[in-house]
Amino acid sequence: MTRPGPTTRVRIRRLTGTRAVDRRDDLSTEEPLEIRLALPGGGHRTVAITMRTPGHDFELAAGFLLGEGVVRPGGIASIAYCTDEDLLPEARYNTVTVRLHGPIPDLPALDRHFVTSSACGVCGSAGLDNLHERCGPLPEDGLRITPEVLYGLPDALRRAQGVFGKTGGLHAAGLFTAEGAQVAVREDVGRHNTVDKLVGWAELTERLPLSGHILMVSGRTSYEIMQKALAANIPTVCAVSAPSSLAVDLAREFGMTLVGFLRGEGCNVYAGQERIFVE
Amino acid sequence: MTRPGPTTRVRIRRLTGTRAVDRRDDLSTEEPLEIRLALPGGGHRTVAITMRTPGHDFELAAGFLLGEGVVRPGGIASIAYCTDEDLLPEARYNTVTVRLHGPIPDLPALDRHFVTSSACGVCGSAGLDNLHERCGPLPEDGLRITPEVLYGLPDALRRAQGVFGKTGGLHAAGLFTAEGAQVAVREDVGRHNTVDKLVGWAELTERLPLSGHILMVSGRTSYEIMQKALAANIPTVCAVSAPSSLAVDLAREFGMTLVGFLRGEGCNVYAGQERIFVE
Repeated sequence: MTRPGPTTRVRIRRLTGTRAVDRRDDLSTEEPLEIRLALPGGGHRTVAITMRTPGHDFELAAGFLLGEGVVRPGGIASIAYCTDEDLLPEARYNTVTVRLHGPIPDLPALDRHFVTSSACGVCGSAGLDNLHERCGPLPEDGLRITPEVLYGLPDALRRAQGVFGKTGGLHAAGLFTAEGAQVAVREDVGRHNTVDKLVGWAELTERLPLSGHILMVSGRTSYEIMQKALAANIPTVCAVSAPSSLAVDLAREFGMTLVGFLRGEGCNVYAGQERIFVE
Repeated sequence: MTRPGPTTRVRIRRLTGTRAVDRRDDLSTEEPLEIRLALPGGGHRTVAITMRTPGHDFELAAGFLLGEGVVRPGGIASIAYCTDEDLLPEARYNTVTVRLHGPIPDLPALDRHFVTSSACGVCGSAGLDNLHERCGPLPEDGLRITPEVLYGLPDALRRAQGVFGKTGGLHAAGLFTAEGAQVAVREDVGRHNTVDKLVGWAELTERLPLSGHILMVSGRTSYEIMQKALAANIPTVCAVSAPSSLAVDLAREFGMTLVGFLRGEGCNVYAGQERIFVE
């Protein structure tokens, strides 16, 4: 079994008007990744199974666990592909086992992003309240980003997207400095995975927290994207497309800057306008 | 507490070049929906909490349960918003309780789309094997769709998107006949929710199975989108953007037609080419 790559080649039929031509094409690979926590006494517990594009799997696992609040920065002892002898060969690169320093945290809350009781039910503001329990609002950091830096981000992200160029079908997230210098870019079929991979990379290279950085995503911004950025202390999130109402609520409540519709020489600033320097 | 609507109005700052103007803007609303199953002896069990755009919530719940294989067509007795007196007012329209005909099915498998044991691990082909246990391949149905019908779908979907026009930030899915007539269109901040809402609508109006229909989605196609279409017996799925490798695998294994990059007068046919009529 060779390790699955980020793209998969298939034969397809291309239609142009009423003409049909058969040819080869590259697809973005989608495969499940099972993330396991090693138990101190031996054995493991499955934390999540997420669909993802193979590549940067350890980063994905680390970023996922950080974003969900399962582990804090510095809490990961090791990550490895599962090498159980009884694992099917084709599943071997789809399972990672994470070993933590210290005890395994309570995991029931993992099943849902909104802790609820039958007494209170769910709502967006209750979700934000729960988030306060593990993430404080970001401090006023004096960060000032110019519009010119913002306007350069979409092109920089697109240029760095290797797989997108082959398949046209991948989400991307990029980490940049406040001056617009590219730090890291990750791609995935799953929108959230791109951010997990970036945050996981920062954790595994001991760069957390990511204060002073900009996160640029290729699509829209939702609650989950903002929550993952907040957990990594990223103060500014920019997107090519629109944010949701709850993404804006979260940004405003936690002192983050949120930019959307960043296209050409224009954008909308939905929260944290003080970090965008306008003369 | 008024019921949350599909859009939320906020004040934003619009930047054009180096000029800034403050103005009002409409966002797509994002709120969690808790889906509960009523237990025969009283009480309930929470099946899922999903972020969604409010509206068509009963359809979303019904479609989700059908797509996950929790219930079969005709198996839903009633759906209602939770009216517990102790529920916070703002959570009241974020919780639906579904009552089934007959017993509650086993639910542990719900937590993951891929049933796994520590012995076999996960991989895309194992996921497809599991899917065979509840979905047979679609039959050769003699359906023939012309390229002209395909080329008309993206514009038809866009024209039907009411909320997108206001916010520019919503996914959409449309159900069409093989002749291209529009049957129903649903929008949501969640890509998968658009398909759940369509399938749920078909269930609640007794239109299942959806043999002979076309599903058109605004974005990409992944494993989950294809799985939901298959559960509703939709034989043809079209998308504006790219499919993933596993979406193509699923379509080929289950006798579905999968079209991608459907733009202008062209498209790629990734599976089930026999349903696309080319002279």
